[in-house]
Amino acid sequence: MQTSPLPHASPIPDDASLPEETLFSGKWLTLKKRGRWEYASRNNPGGAVIILAVTPDDKVIFVEQYRVSILANTIEMPAGLVGDLEGAEDEDVLLAAERALEEETGYACGRMEFVHEGPSSSGMSTEMIAFARAWDLKKVGKGGGDETENIIVHEVPRSEAGKWLFDRAAEGFSIDAKLFAGLWFIEHPEAHKR
Amino acid sequence: MQTSPLPHASPIPDDASLPEETLFSGKWLTLKKRGRWEYASRNNPGGAVIILAVTPDDKVIFVEQYRVSILANTIEMPAGLVGDLEGAEDEDVLLAAERALEEETGYACGRMEFVHEGPSSSGMSTEMIAFARAWDLKKVGKGGGDETENIIVHEVPRSEAGKWLFDRAAEGFSIDAKLFAGLWFIEHPEAHKR
Repeated sequence: MQTSPLPHASPIPDDASLPEETLFSGKWLTLKKRGRWEYASRNNPGGAVIILAVTPDDKVIFVEQYRVSILANTIEMPAGLVGDLEGAEDEDVLLAAERALEEETGYACGRMEFVHEGPSSSGMSTEMIAFARAWDLKKVGKGGGDETENIIVHEVPRSEAGKWLFDRAAEGFSIDAKLFAGLWFIEHPEAHKR
Repeated sequence: MQTSPLPHASPIPDDASLPEETLFSGKWLTLKKRGRWEYASRNNPGGAVIILAVTPDDKVIFVEQYRVSILANTIEMPAGLVGDLEGAEDEDVLLAAERALEEETGYACGRMEFVHEGPSSSGMSTEMIAFARAWDLKKVGKGGGDETENIIVHEVPRSEAGKWLFDRAAEGFSIDAKLFAGLWFIEHPEAHKR
């Protein structure tokens, strides 16, 4: 959250100084309002992390599951919520990424590298999504998610991954554009280094 | 929305056949629930469209604004809601893209090409985001958005755009990863063609 003005930044609207109101609190999400702006927040404070995972034989790992919100099968990259386990609310994003990668895909990684964090839809949500690159993958289990999930793992040669995603979209799978961001990060492994 | 099973798709959970409940209806957003899944929906039916815009001198166009939901200045690509104008609820996504591009950046385009559509955050939202590529740009106005917006336009040489985004993130700007998806689409202009 930004606390002081940025150089040459666009002006801060008056609404930003108004108090935040809660319109409705659900079990997982809360609908909020500040001035004339409405937005949804996750009740777990840590956001979510997407894992950029490439196997030793240069295949990108995708996971397929059914999403009730949009009534559609999706292709995604492995991902997990940060701090959603009781007693581990301050879980580190990279630890959450390691846990989600192993749960969903059965791969452990030698090293997890932070790449980026940003809003998933800043016009309507406070959700922040991080991206982490998993290095030195090693198969240690079968994956498939926890007991509430039915996850199918796909491993796609890196050079064909973009075309493969568009082929799945043409079949009717719902594809979040963040997957193409993931491919960009994989293709430009130095870009985030400062 | 998917109406029949996909080949080899992950199983459809029982919750998908339960009725959708409305938890709270706001002016712009509605919080909904189906089974144990909660999610937010925009009240305008058409979703949003992000415009991939490269000027004749090969610069990528970004827009900067303040987002009240996350209390932060963001860098985004030009974008607009589809069907949010009264009397134009069935507005075509490419027309909405042309309108938003000109309003925000002052550029008209000779042709707008559909690239992709997918969920922005399928775990918590029904929002669908489209991407469209604007071709043959021509400056026709000053841009800056409508009367409720304060938008600053940035034009960044295409080869430096990724680094420029990470530099802005390091300064404190909030950067949606979909911008890197936008760069991937710009770098792979044939990938979506079937």
